[in-house]
Amino acid sequence: MYTESLRELIELFGMLPGIGPKSAQRIALYILKRDKDFAQRLSQAIVKAKDKVGLCQTCFNLSDTETCHICSNPKRDQSLICVVPDSRDLVAIEKTHEWAGLYHVLGGVISPMDGIGAEELQIKSLIQRVANSDVKEVTLAISPSVEGETTTYYLAELLKPFVKVTRIAYGLSMGQDLDYADANTIVKSIEGRIVISDKIS
Amino acid sequence: MYTESLRELIELFGMLPGIGPKSAQRIALYILKRDKDFAQRLSQAIVKAKDKVGLCQTCFNLSDTETCHICSNPKRDQSLICVVPDSRDLVAIEKTHEWAGLYHVLGGVISPMDGIGAEELQIKSLIQRVANSDVKEVTLAISPSVEGETTTYYLAELLKPFVKVTRIAYGLSMGQDLDYADANTIVKSIEGRIVISDKIS
Repeated sequence: MYTESLRELIELFGMLPGIGPKSAQRIALYILKRDKDFAQRLSQAIVKAKDKVGLCQTCFNLSDTETCHICSNPKRDQSLICVVPDSRDLVAIEKTHEWAGLYHVLGGVISPMDGIGAEELQIKSLIQRVANSDVKEVTLAISPSVEGETTTYYLAELLKPFVKVTRIAYGLSMGQDLDYADANTIVKSIEGRIVISDKIS
Repeated sequence: MYTESLRELIELFGMLPGIGPKSAQRIALYILKRDKDFAQRLSQAIVKAKDKVGLCQTCFNLSDTETCHICSNPKRDQSLICVVPDSRDLVAIEKTHEWAGLYHVLGGVISPMDGIGAEELQIKSLIQRVANSDVKEVTLAISPSVEGETTTYYLAELLKPFVKVTRIAYGLSMGQDLDYADANTIVKSIEGRIVISDKIS
């Protein structure tokens, strides 16, 4: 139905995550409608980002330098490492301005179903990093899915000999209704309950 | 949070229709994860499609030749023209293999709110095309929104002196429950009712 060059463009857009055939078609036609400058900017930005952006050799965050801007920032607390599956998770935490330490980006979670074992992830580099430094605490910030939980407990076991290991809290989201929360979340929120005030004895 | 080249890529993807900031981020990171070849293919496909694909000078369908493959197909019934707002609508009709005639792509519908008047659309070219040829019937295939209906009746008025004008049927979708249909659709389906069998007199 479409010319060959347009079909190819639709097909390639359809390979991107979250874009179905209908959206791919819509996006390709949108690009044809916009001016030539837009197409060229998008085209160049793709190649440029792919060329420039690599991984930080310390924490494996996305970086266009050998050491990323977080690892090379002396104001960061070098004794704390927060372990996240993905760069997106790192960005989500950074946006809160709450974490003063460093990061370690695993590149995913352990998922045998998808063929992702511990060797595919930046786990060896994490252990080496922790073993050879003054890190005092490693916080595991991994979404509590089945794979996420597996990864959390696997890492906790490996890290135990070297360092204090913590994980982020699971529980109700802020503003979430208790009677709409799933049972697992409620269980986790009870298990993880914290003391507000203690009986004066 | 991200390096400059990655930020730029996310921003550009965010300009595409149906892609919000979160999706743009996800797509950009996906491209970084894929091999260099994929990034290059996508980059080149964008520029190539924009360079090659223009509009058919007869029907204004997308085409990389001066006359599109439909207009230049002698097997098509040259006496029928189906008027559609967009190339996507043309493709939707072509997929049914039901229409044997030609097309005319308006490039949108009349929508004063969006600053789209009759001059912005391929209406003058449609009238000229119909006036100077042996076209016997023009079928208006425009979605029955307020703007679509306005466009349909506007075109019908202009075309009346030259040719028989029809429009596609409005009514219930196949498989649609009558008690879930909106009132306008039911009204249209009653107005447009067709005879199944006539009383034998």
